[in-house]
Amino acid sequence: MKIPVQFVPQLKNIKLLPNDVVIIDRRLLSFRQVKSWTANSIKYPVVAGESLKDIKKFPSHMEKILRLTNKISPKELRFVVIGGGSVGDFGGFIASVYKRGMPLINIPSTWLAAVDSSHGGKTGLNAAGTKNQVGSFYPAKSVYVCKELLFLQPRERALDAYGEVVKAFLLDAKLSRTNFLSLAVSEETLWKFLKQCIEAKYRIVNRDPKEQSGIRSLLNLGHTVGHAFEVVLKWPHGKAILYGLAFDLFWSEEQGLITSNDLKNIVNSKVWKELFHFQEYQKALSFPSKRIMKLIQQDKKKTTSKNIRQVFVARAGKPLLETIPLQEIRTEYERQQKYFH
Amino acid sequence: MKIPVQFVPQLKNIKLLPNDVVIIDRRLLSFRQVKSWTANSIKYPVVAGESLKDIKKFPSHMEKILRLTNKISPKELRFVVIGGGSVGDFGGFIASVYKRGMPLINIPSTWLAAVDSSHGGKTGLNAAGTKNQVGSFYPAKSVYVCKELLFLQPRERALDAYGEVVKAFLLDAKLSRTNFLSLAVSEETLWKFLKQCIEAKYRIVNRDPKEQSGIRSLLNLGHTVGHAFEVVLKWPHGKAILYGLAFDLFWSEEQGLITSNDLKNIVNSKVWKELFHFQEYQKALSFPSKRIMKLIQQDKKKTTSKNIRQVFVARAGKPLLETIPLQEIRTEYERQQKYFH
Repeated sequence: MKIPVQFVPQLKNIKLLPNDVVIIDRRLLSFRQVKSWTANSIKYPVVAGESLKDIKKFPSHMEKILRLTNKISPKELRFVVIGGGSVGDFGGFIASVYKRGMPLINIPSTWLAAVDSSHGGKTGLNAAGTKNQVGSFYPAKSVYVCKELLFLQPRERALDAYGEVVKAFLLDAKLSRTNFLSLAVSEETLWKFLKQCIEAKYRIVNRDPKEQSGIRSLLNLGHTVGHAFEVVLKWPHGKAILYGLAFDLFWSEEQGLITSNDLKNIVNSKVWKELFHFQEYQKALSFPSKRIMKLIQQDKKKTTSKNIRQVFVARAGKPLLETIPLQEIRTEYERQQKYFH
Repeated sequence: MKIPVQFVPQLKNIKLLPNDVVIIDRRLLSFRQVKSWTANSIKYPVVAGESLKDIKKFPSHMEKILRLTNKISPKELRFVVIGGGSVGDFGGFIASVYKRGMPLINIPSTWLAAVDSSHGGKTGLNAAGTKNQVGSFYPAKSVYVCKELLFLQPRERALDAYGEVVKAFLLDAKLSRTNFLSLAVSEETLWKFLKQCIEAKYRIVNRDPKEQSGIRSLLNLGHTVGHAFEVVLKWPHGKAILYGLAFDLFWSEEQGLITSNDLKNIVNSKVWKELFHFQEYQKALSFPSKRIMKLIQQDKKKTTSKNIRQVFVARAGKPLLETIPLQEIRTEYERQQKYFH
């Protein structure tokens, strides 16, 4: 798969057509530049959040969209999805099943979606109390990453995205050779590294587009325990992932996989020091291990009921994928609880 | 795409596994041989018919299936779909979106599904009052065509399927060179020609698996007006298609595309004479053309609001695809109304 991403400075660089069905986070329409840019297309504004992805609401969304578009020939219709992760998952799924699939254009409006979720073709709805139980692999024809749109967000949302960028840095050989970790945390830095970060993700996704070979599990670095932190502490995704990365890094050191020196280069870096706070990590380690394990077991990425693919780090840019008994996460969580007490 | 079809004499030749989720027309479970064959798998019996495909019921089906399967690792799960057209469309869609897609095995239980709908990878649900508005292209890993299962049906269901077989004969050069049209109508004949018929369908589908180039529109032979007959007369699909084929053949003659001699060879054949009844055709031509046109316009296959891909026949085995103004169907319907009065 060719990387379908285009980087543009302004919204007006992205041409919308009259037969485009624009599925958009309705908060974005309060910005006059977004409103005027989308004025001539068919709009389907949605309320962002996990509740948008509830399968129970899918029939009513779909029927409304079908009525809204019943005058347009399927040959002329495109879905343009503008929003963060939940809007992307929802809109991508709609595009993938509307009349057996229509062209999809993704325009991430949050840094987190721009770095991560708008790439790789995964769509999803939530069902039976679990996230992304229903969905498709449906790569967008184009993804537009637009500076003007991303800079509409408050600065904290940029910080939220840093966790995923640090993950990309730890996973990707090319990115790990840059000076990213030594630069001050800012939106301008994020914008500067966005392209390399996204390319790093496609390098992995393109080796395993449908999650069949296991290679794509590399993207789970920081996510197994990080997801559990996200749930128990109600942290933003990016923050939870940063502390999940900390867990996997400390574990890699304990296993003798990363040298203390290589680990120090990461945790003493400017970015890490600005974002990682020891008291916060202690909070993340303050839960009974049983509770953390229950959340991990509910995670759908388990390969069988007893094993999990765990990503370790040998050094920045060199991850190691291993299938291990789930139980070992518990042992390690309890070890870190004692160690960082 | 390799043709994924296997022909087997008996149900016991198809091995079901304990982690197979069997979506099955529940009427089939009243046959003791079907019941014992499926005894060790997870069963999800459904009531066949268009109402099964109602998008409003999809969330509840999906959540039940997720609960039924929550102990099975996605790596070990397959969906086995056993039934006619509606069960196949529904079950195929479920398989295509359950955790972003699981292996799908199709086992058609009706002649019509065995000839036609279980092949080609189209799945679908009905929404906003129209058929197949939501769906996917999701080819089955395997399709098992089982003589024992098909012969459980009453003989009339075999007759229903003949329309699609005659269509295949008119479309496919290889099939048109067989003696199919000169043999008495029977289930044994249908079984004998099933393989060639299915191969003929794959020859077209494989040239245009996602309905993009237009080649796949050839499969619409007999279907444009035939679908309208199906709705207004509440005829079985196969019967309606046979009369739809008659319409397209007579139109082809009127256009000078097929010679009178070639047409006679078809309509004077044993099969045609057994299945085509002139009084029935007059019934099909007894509706105001406006009503027929309204039904055709609702058909989602229209390329734009004003044109339609029409399949003519130059001779058996040589179809001709043309894009024509929709209005020409009306003119021809009215001509045939007068001509066959």
